[in-house]
Amino acid sequence: MARAANASLHGSAPDKSPQVLLLIDVINAMDFPRGKHLLRHALPSARKMAALKKRAREAGVPVIYVNDNFGRWQSDFKAHVTHCLEADVPGGPVVQQLLPDEEDYFVLKPKHSGFYSTSLEILLKYLEATTLILAGFAGNLCVLYTANDAYMRDYELIVPRDCVASETKQANDHALAQMQKHLRADIRTSSRIILGKSAKPTGK
Amino acid sequence: MARAANASLHGSAPDKSPQVLLLIDVINAMDFPRGKHLLRHALPSARKMAALKKRAREAGVPVIYVNDNFGRWQSDFKAHVTHCLEADVPGGPVVQQLLPDEEDYFVLKPKHSGFYSTSLEILLKYLEATTLILAGFAGNLCVLYTANDAYMRDYELIVPRDCVASETKQANDHALAQMQKHLRADIRTSSRIILGKSAKPTGK
Amino acid sequence: MARAANASLHGSAPDKSPQVLLLIDVINAMDFPRGKHLLRHALPSARKMAALKKRAREAGVPVIYVNDNFGRWQSDFKAHVTHCLEADVPGGPVVQQLLPDEEDYFVLKPKHSGFYSTSLEILLKYLEATTLILAGFAGNLCVLYTANDAYMRDYELIVPRDCVASETKQANDHALAQMQKHLRADIRTSSRIILGKSAKPTGK
Amino acid sequence: MARAANASLHGSAPDKSPQVLLLIDVINAMDFPRGKHLLRHALPSARKMAALKKRAREAGVPVIYVNDNFGRWQSDFKAHVTHCLEADVPGGPVVQQLLPDEEDYFVLKPKHSGFYSTSLEILLKYLEATTLILAGFAGNLCVLYTANDAYMRDYELIVPRDCVASETKQANDHALAQMQKHLRADIRTSSRIILGKSAKPTGK
Repeated sequence: MARAANASLHGSAPDKSPQVLLLIDVINAMDFPRGKHLLRHALPSARKMAALKKRAREAGVPVIYVNDNFGRWQSDFKAHVTHCLEADVPGGPVVQQLLPDEEDYFVLKPKHSGFYSTSLEILLKYLEATTLILAGFAGNLCVLYTANDAYMRDYELIVPRDCVASETKQANDHALAQMQKHLRADIRTSSRIILGKSAKPTGK
Repeated sequence: MARAANASLHGSAPDKSPQVLLLIDVINAMDFPRGKHLLRHALPSARKMAALKKRAREAGVPVIYVNDNFGRWQSDFKAHVTHCLEADVPGGPVVQQLLPDEEDYFVLKPKHSGFYSTSLEILLKYLEATTLILAGFAGNLCVLYTANDAYMRDYELIVPRDCVASETKQANDHALAQMQKHLRADIRTSSRIILGKSAKPTGK
Repeated sequence: MARAANASLHGSAPDKSPQVLLLIDVINAMDFPRGKHLLRHALPSARKMAALKKRAREAGVPVIYVNDNFGRWQSDFKAHVTHCLEADVPGGPVVQQLLPDEEDYFVLKPKHSGFYSTSLEILLKYLEATTLILAGFAGNLCVLYTANDAYMRDYELIVPRDCVASETKQANDHALAQMQKHLRADIRTSSRIILGKSAKPTGK
Repeated sequence: MARAANASLHGSAPDKSPQVLLLIDVINAMDFPRGKHLLRHALPSARKMAALKKRAREAGVPVIYVNDNFGRWQSDFKAHVTHCLEADVPGGPVVQQLLPDEEDYFVLKPKHSGFYSTSLEILLKYLEATTLILAGFAGNLCVLYTANDAYMRDYELIVPRDCVASETKQANDHALAQMQKHLRADIRTSSRIILGKSAKPTGK
């Protein structure tokens, strides 16, 4: 790709890291019809994601929230986070564990894939990312679509199987199997991922 | 294009309008080396833009802020607006006149063109826009790049000549002439633009 | 989307049709390691595709070959067709039934999805397509990826289940089920698709 | 960007080169209303381009024809070349000097910019290009649009001023000045470009 040395980004992405952690649709009210099914599986994975995010931050691995903006084109991401923390929002207990930090990046996506009609690709280029760690919801929809698009762009993929959740365990397992087989994704559990500069490309 | 009837956008864009007003890089600290040259021309155009925006809002024409995020990948647009209003920020007097309203849309762009690596195209599709009114800075750079990309996507263009500014009047005039000749842009002054549903495609 | 009336395409796509038939990777030597598995399922579907293509042509529905260029960046599509017809090319019997006609369109894709880094989207826009009929190989890879991307762009999808094939029947059936459930694809058999101007959007 | 080591392109681009020569719209019938104005300036530049292309080939620098497909979505590039060589096609004497070789690449573009709705970006990525040498027609339209898009993607640009032509010398000179000033393009004459692996990024 083009030389980053002389490159000017209208906005800065000062971090450089071969690994990047993408948290997909985790800031999620889960107030849609079948949201409670997703929530049941999302809650345990949120705890794993929180631990993984903490380790990523300590290892200098950038974290990008790649999130739907659920009807909120005109408001900002912080307002969406605040909304999800209000009483009676089903997704609140998940969001509570995954609050964005000042240092985190975010990309609002209008559709399923984090790459479609967003700035994600250019952000990853400036971060010099080669391996994407994907976590979030739903494993068989937005995570899978994002993984497909990442694979076409030649990223190495790690999709920790304890950090993705779908409406049913069966659908989640099948999506993980597809990503492992067709996208060569490493689906080891999150605690076994080696993070940081000493990691080999796929964390193996 | 595809049928909007059954379409689901992960986020909503409830307005429909054949005309849309794009305000390009108006939330701008103008604290770069030659910013003062741009500011000299930007200030009078900001007054015209503010009047045009007021008329657009009254006519039901959506307003989209298409803006660099000047080193602020991780913060939000509101924080950028707030920063520009701080004392001693050169661009403050421009920003003061063009503060976003709750109803306005915004699209953060990483590079010159509003279409490159952003959600602008999909937002315009959902708004069912056919004519773009471009205003902002710099006329010979980000406005021109955005106009080029809009023309390739078959939008009708109105670029009111009193609502764009560049570092020099000569560069601005030349950019306007190029957009008129090569992109078939209507460059009438802003007060002569016919806004709203009764407008013909190019406001003529 | 933008007004086609004044639009100039650097190239012309004179047909207009709400339905378009996409033949995905059918011009395929199938000389890769597991190609014989795919070929076994591809052959019967090729006969169905040939019949569907004939009906599409009669009904004025444009046909687009969306095809990998298997190592052939520098040669043209016709040369690729010719190569596939040489003796001992496994995919020959499939290609023989699906030879492109002069009136057909083609789009060379560098990766799995027909939409990624190609001119497909702009061609469909000029054809004013709203419903895509997807057929070809492999059902669980390039057809599925293309279907995902089409769905994000709000196209109605018809994926006739007798006109897609994968290496295993199980993988093919699962891909069809996914497209039916998540992409709202109509997976009726090809003979039951209503083609042409009288067809309702999804051929129902 | 992503690791090329494990990358699979559905098609192969075996060459690797930091420099790439793009010939823009040189296979051109020039049979449009003002084509004769362009032709007058194009002919002398075609001779320079032919010499530059010869040197590029000798130095192992890949050549990509980036060309409109002028109403020929359904036919192939070779057929377009053949058409341009027919008697009475105004652009013939230009095309004659710039015939594609078997080793050359080509990308058909539907609009002005070589990057819009094409596979150019992914091809350049696989070639590992960092510096683009742009030549062709018209200097103030398709070459300029392609240069703008290349600059946004952080490529170093060389636009040899004797290898681009526009309908008027004035328009051509102004486009070159813009590319030099705003896109940091090196506009030295073609004979002074240092080609091949020993070249510094911008040929300086």
